[in-house]
Amino acid sequence: MKQGKVTLLSAGPGALDLLTLRAARVLGEADVLLIDDLANPEIATLAPQARVIAVGKRGGCRSTPQAFIERMMCRFAKCGAHVVRVKGGDALMFGRAGEEMTALRRAGVPVEIVNGVSAAFAAAAGLGMSLTHRDHCAGVTFVTAHRQDGSAPNWAALAATGTTLAIYMGLHRVEALSAALLAHLDAHTPAGIVQWAGTPQERRMVTSLGRLAADVRAGGFASPAILLVGGAVAEAAMDAATTRQQREDVIARAA
Amino acid sequence: MKQGKVTLLSAGPGALDLLTLRAARVLGEADVLLIDDLANPEIATLAPQARVIAVGKRGGCRSTPQAFIERMMCRFAKCGAHVVRVKGGDALMFGRAGEEMTALRRAGVPVEIVNGVSAAFAAAAGLGMSLTHRDHCAGVTFVTAHRQDGSAPNWAALAATGTTLAIYMGLHRVEALSAALLAHLDAHTPAGIVQWAGTPQERRMVTSLGRLAADVRAGGFASPAILLVGGAVAEAAMDAATTRQQREDVIARAA
Repeated sequence: MKQGKVTLLSAGPGALDLLTLRAARVLGEADVLLIDDLANPEIATLAPQARVIAVGKRGGCRSTPQAFIERMMCRFAKCGAHVVRVKGGDALMFGRAGEEMTALRRAGVPVEIVNGVSAAFAAAAGLGMSLTHRDHCAGVTFVTAHRQDGSAPNWAALAATGTTLAIYMGLHRVEALSAALLAHLDAHTPAGIVQWAGTPQERRMVTSLGRLAADVRAGGFASPAILLVGGAVAEAAMDAATTRQQREDVIARAA
Repeated sequence: MKQGKVTLLSAGPGALDLLTLRAARVLGEADVLLIDDLANPEIATLAPQARVIAVGKRGGCRSTPQAFIERMMCRFAKCGAHVVRVKGGDALMFGRAGEEMTALRRAGVPVEIVNGVSAAFAAAAGLGMSLTHRDHCAGVTFVTAHRQDGSAPNWAALAATGTTLAIYMGLHRVEALSAALLAHLDAHTPAGIVQWAGTPQERRMVTSLGRLAADVRAGGFASPAILLVGGAVAEAAMDAATTRQQREDVIARAA
């Protein structure tokens, strides 16, 4: 029997043509696809030969337990299958790849990674801005709005780094995280939001940290979305962004 | 005359098959390629129809002045050409894309972004680790070892974030940055280095922050390289990494 293996494959932010050439090739070789909730399900069209299993895991609801996913990957691989675990964005960013690699190594299953485009890059592209404009920052921090244990990240330290902040999974607590950041950053700090970055449904807005929470709610933004905070956001292309002022104009005309 | 435009295109970390499908398509449509020093020059094979111009800009030496690159892009685009500016990694990370977008917008030249895989993602894949293992961190910070004005980033704040640190362009000052981080992080903090991440020449090592500078020099590592610092590096696959101990064993056997 042939040796099975697992590939943790990055689906990118949504549009199928943002997959890498390597990802497309590996999908064509897969025996089993395990597709994450945040990955575009159309990715299965690139693996018509594969058995496809959806293993959604969004925010804890209707989710397939992590341990079950890991057991399933091991079982198929040990039967000789090439299992391709498809994750949204890049597999090595906020995707439980660490736990899965540990489980696979313990089970003696070979594991490979295929990188991809993480959502914050697509968000910055949508806004027409660099994540690390050197006039504004020394880099960029990708962070989730809450830790595994329910605690918040160290917003004081994050603000003090002077890096652009790209906040994943922060929308449902945008009031709390804005308030936490406003304790350390000026209310005029540029801020942006991009919903469904890198997909045809993409929506975006540029505002300030002080108005972020109100503008996000007024604009009807919903998950999945990336929040961007920092001076670099000031460089966003105004034609690419639905600005607060533009939106207010729209609302005023509609009233 | 047709309307020209500029695409800022991400070449990824080196291997051609880590380009996105969109990047490959756009390369096939280019009239002029301006290829950055850190991008794989073989990328030109995907644009056999294009005029290819190398515009190296590494560490200030033998470099094409930024203003000249921007003028050249504008000139070709205004003549109706589709100019594809190829940048290593993702175009929106440490690649002067911000300045270039500003210059192009001022000149009235349409500009598009094609995202890609930044080198730190390939480095993490090489080490078999997640950048954001939730047992260890709330995220990851991508930072350069020095600012535009020559100053260092705020290492105290970066250390306090508890995020994995992915340090670009840090190798030539690894002693100074290790010392700066050791003022705020334990010497046993896991650290890794990956040279030429995502290419056939990739070399990697896992060690500790306290030994990082000495091990990097003893191992003969050179630029371009990504340094990774933080608890998440402890999860690196030991079979993927040349550990300090393994390397010492090799040296001992060779002596």
